[in-house]
Amino acid sequence: MNNILLKDGDVLCADGQVRQQDIAISGSFITQIGTVEGQADRIIDCHDKLIIPGFVNTHTHAAMTLFRSYADDMMLMDWLQTKIWPAEENLTAEDVYWGTLLAIAEMLKSGTTCFADMYFFMPEVARAVAESGIRAVLARGMAGVAPTANQALAESENFYKEWHNTADGRITVMLGPHAPYTCPPDYLKKVTALAAKLGAQIHIHLSETAGEVADCQKQYGKSPIALMEELGVLDHGVLAAHCIHISPNDIAIMKEKGVRVAHNPGSNMKLASGVAPVPDMQKAGLCVGLGTDGAASNNNLDMLEELRLAAMLHKVHRLDPLSVPTKTAVDMATVSGAEAVGLGTLTGKIQTSYKADITIFDMQEPYWHPRHERLSLLTYAASSRDVHTVIVDGKILLDNHQLTTIDQERLIAEVDHRGIRLVNHKS
Amino acid sequence: MNNILLKDGDVLCADGQVRQQDIAISGSFITQIGTVEGQADRIIDCHDKLIIPGFVNTHTHAAMTLFRSYADDMMLMDWLQTKIWPAEENLTAEDVYWGTLLAIAEMLKSGTTCFADMYFFMPEVARAVAESGIRAVLARGMAGVAPTANQALAESENFYKEWHNTADGRITVMLGPHAPYTCPPDYLKKVTALAAKLGAQIHIHLSETAGEVADCQKQYGKSPIALMEELGVLDHGVLAAHCIHISPNDIAIMKEKGVRVAHNPGSNMKLASGVAPVPDMQKAGLCVGLGTDGAASNNNLDMLEELRLAAMLHKVHRLDPLSVPTKTAVDMATVSGAEAVGLGTLTGKIQTSYKADITIFDMQEPYWHPRHERLSLLTYAASSRDVHTVIVDGKILLDNHQLTTIDQERLIAEVDHRGIRLVNHKS
Repeated sequence: MNNILLKDGDVLCADGQVRQQDIAISGSFITQIGTVEGQADRIIDCHDKLIIPGFVNTHTHAAMTLFRSYADDMMLMDWLQTKIWPAEENLTAEDVYWGTLLAIAEMLKSGTTCFADMYFFMPEVARAVAESGIRAVLARGMAGVAPTANQALAESENFYKEWHNTADGRITVMLGPHAPYTCPPDYLKKVTALAAKLGAQIHIHLSETAGEVADCQKQYGKSPIALMEELGVLDHGVLAAHCIHISPNDIAIMKEKGVRVAHNPGSNMKLASGVAPVPDMQKAGLCVGLGTDGAASNNNLDMLEELRLAAMLHKVHRLDPLSVPTKTAVDMATVSGAEAVGLGTLTGKIQTSYKADITIFDMQEPYWHPRHERLSLLTYAASSRDVHTVIVDGKILLDNHQLTTIDQERLIAEVDHRGIRLVNHKS
Repeated sequence: MNNILLKDGDVLCADGQVRQQDIAISGSFITQIGTVEGQADRIIDCHDKLIIPGFVNTHTHAAMTLFRSYADDMMLMDWLQTKIWPAEENLTAEDVYWGTLLAIAEMLKSGTTCFADMYFFMPEVARAVAESGIRAVLARGMAGVAPTANQALAESENFYKEWHNTADGRITVMLGPHAPYTCPPDYLKKVTALAAKLGAQIHIHLSETAGEVADCQKQYGKSPIALMEELGVLDHGVLAAHCIHISPNDIAIMKEKGVRVAHNPGSNMKLASGVAPVPDMQKAGLCVGLGTDGAASNNNLDMLEELRLAAMLHKVHRLDPLSVPTKTAVDMATVSGAEAVGLGTLTGKIQTSYKADITIFDMQEPYWHPRHERLSLLTYAASSRDVHTVIVDGKILLDNHQLTTIDQERLIAEVDHRGIRLVNHKS
C-alpha cells in the first residue's frame, strides 16, 4: 500500500475554510486530516502551498486539442462546416489517442484530476485515461442524423460494457447523445431505452445557442429541456452541457429531474453563444459545475481560467459585483463538478474516506502576495502554471511540475505532426 | 554600448505577420531585423520562442498590489468606504515604493514593459521605476473634493518638473485629475491651466459607472465626456480610463479631440461596471489600449489575461464571434497601448529605430501545441507564466524567468509584512 503525507499545507477543507493541516493518503484514499505524525513512503513539504480538491472538468472533447488554433474568430456554422468537420473526417483512432493524451497532459499540469468527455473512438480515449492515471467520465458522442447513428448506439453499448467502472474505478461511462438538434425524438427514445437497460447516465448538449432553441420551439412546440423531459431523457441522471438559453420553466423541470449542468464560460464567450443564467440555476438549487469544452473552442483546458471567468462574467452580465463570489466559483470547479459528473460521494472534497484527488498550488509568485485571503488569490490572481503537484486516486501524476506517467517530449512530437497532417490532408 | 542578438525567434513583425527572424539590439534600440550575422555581448537562442512587442499596461494604480485579496465581491461604495479608503489612509511613502516594486516585479514577469500609473507619493513610484528599469507614464492622482486638492496640484507640478523625461527617457509624466465626480469644474480648469503651462498630457477616469454618468447629466446637463470638452480638458492630449457608459455623441467628441482610451476588461467585469463599447470606438477610429486597473480590483496585473478578456468579452456581449479578433486584441495590448500612453513613435512595435521593449514567450507547454496559428495560441491558450525573457530600453530585466534588477525574496518579505500592517492598523 502506497502512503503519502502532505505536511503543513494551507488546506481548503470541506467546510470551505482554509487551515494549515497535514493530509495522510493511504492507497487511493484520504485517511487523515489534521496533525499527522509518523512515516510515509513519500512526504511532501507543503509549506507555502495551497492544497485544494482537484478540479473537475465537466465537459470537454479532449482530442480536439489537435485542432487548437486551427480556426478562430468565425461564425459557428462557417467554423464547423468549412474547418472543424472536414478536419475531423481525417481523424484516426490513433489521432484520438494522442489528442486525448495531449489534453490529459495539459489538464494534469493545470490541476484537473477528473474530466467528462464526449467524442468518438472512445476505447482510445479510455486507453489514454487508463495509462495516464487520471479519472474520467466518458461518453461516445452519438448523432442520430449521421450515417453512423446505429453504429454509434452499438459502440456505446459495447463501450459501456467493456469500460464502465474499470481502471481501478477511475473510468465511468455515460451515454452521449450529442444534442436535440442532431438526435431526433425516435433516436433519443432508443438512447433512453439503452440507458434504462444498462443503468447508464446521459451526457448531452442542451440549449447552447438561441438558434437551436428557436428551431426546437418551431418544430416541436417546446423548448429542448421540455422536449427532453417528454422523451424521458431526463429520467436517467443527466449531465447537460451549456444550458444558456433556458427559461424559468426549464429551470423548474431541471430541478425536478435533478439535471446537473456543465457551465463553459470560456467557450460560451469565444463562440458568442450567450451567458447562461448561472445565478438563477444556483438559486433554484441546481448543481452547476464548470467545463472547458473542447480546445478548438476555448482554446485551452485550464480550469482555473474557467473558475475565474465564472466569477467575473456573471458579475458584469448582471451588473452585480456580488454574483458568483469566490467561494461559489471554487465550489463549481471542485465539489459541484464532482457531483455534476456523478462522482460526488467519491471525489471533489478534501475529506477522509474520499478519494485522494488533490491539487497543490505553489504560492511563490508575486501575485500571491500579500496574502490577505487565499481563496481570493486563487480565484482572481493565480495562474494554473502554479500547480506544483497533482495526485489522482492516491498516485502522484504531477511531481514538482513534471508529468510522471506521460512522456511529454514524445507526446509533443506526435501531436505537432498529427495536427498538421489533419488540416492539410484532403480525404 | 550593450549589444544583444535574438536568434531564430518567431517574431511578430510590425506588419502583423509572424516570421522567423533575428533581431539585433544596440544600446536601447532595435537596429536590425532579418538574418543577422556577427557577434554581440549576449546572444539569446530564440528557437521555439515567440517574440512580441512588450505589453503596455495603459491604466493601473501600482501600489494597490498591497491590498490584493483584502476585499472582493462587494458593492463599489461599500468596498471603497469600508475597506479601501481606510486602508489607504495608512499608506506611507515607503509602502508605496514597495507596493509599486511588487507591481513592477509582477508586470515584468508577465511581459509588460511599460505602464501608466495614477496614485500618490509619486516620487516613490518614480524611484521604483528608475531602479527597476521598466518604462512608465506617471501621474499624481488629484481629487478636487479632497482636503489635499491644492497640495496635489503643487505636487503634480513639482513631480512633472523633477521627473518628466528622466531615467534615460523611460519616465514621462502626465497630470492625473482623478475623475469628473471627484474634480469639480473649477478644479479641472486649474488642472487644464497647469497642463497648458507645462505642456503636460492628462490621465483621467471617465464614465466608468452608470451612476456617475447619470449624476453628471443631472448636475451639468451633459455627459462627463461633453463636460470635459467644455472645460478644455480634452485639448491637452488625454488618456481616458474605462469609457464604459458613453454615447455615439461622446465617441464623436473623443474622435475629434484624439482622446485615447484605456480599456480594463478584468476590472470592469469584477466590479460589475459594465462593458465598454470597444468595437464602436475602434470603428470610429479611436485608439484603444488595454489596462489592468489596480490589483485591488482585478486582482493581478496580467496583461495577457486582459488581452484574452478583450477578445472574449465583446464576442459574448455583442453575440458576435467576429468581435475583437486575435490580431485586434494583440494590437490593443501592444501598439495601441503605446499610442494610448503617448509613446507610439517610440515603443509598441518590433521595428528598427524603435526602442528595444520586447517580450519573449517560451512555447514549450502542451497548450502551445499543435501550432496551427501562433497569434491564436497567444490570445486564447498561452499563460503569462510562459514569459521567458523581457527587455526594456535594450536591457534584459527578466532573464530566463528571473528578475535581474529586483531582489524578489526581499520584496516578498517586505510586502507581506506591509500588507498585513495596512489592513490591521487603525490610524
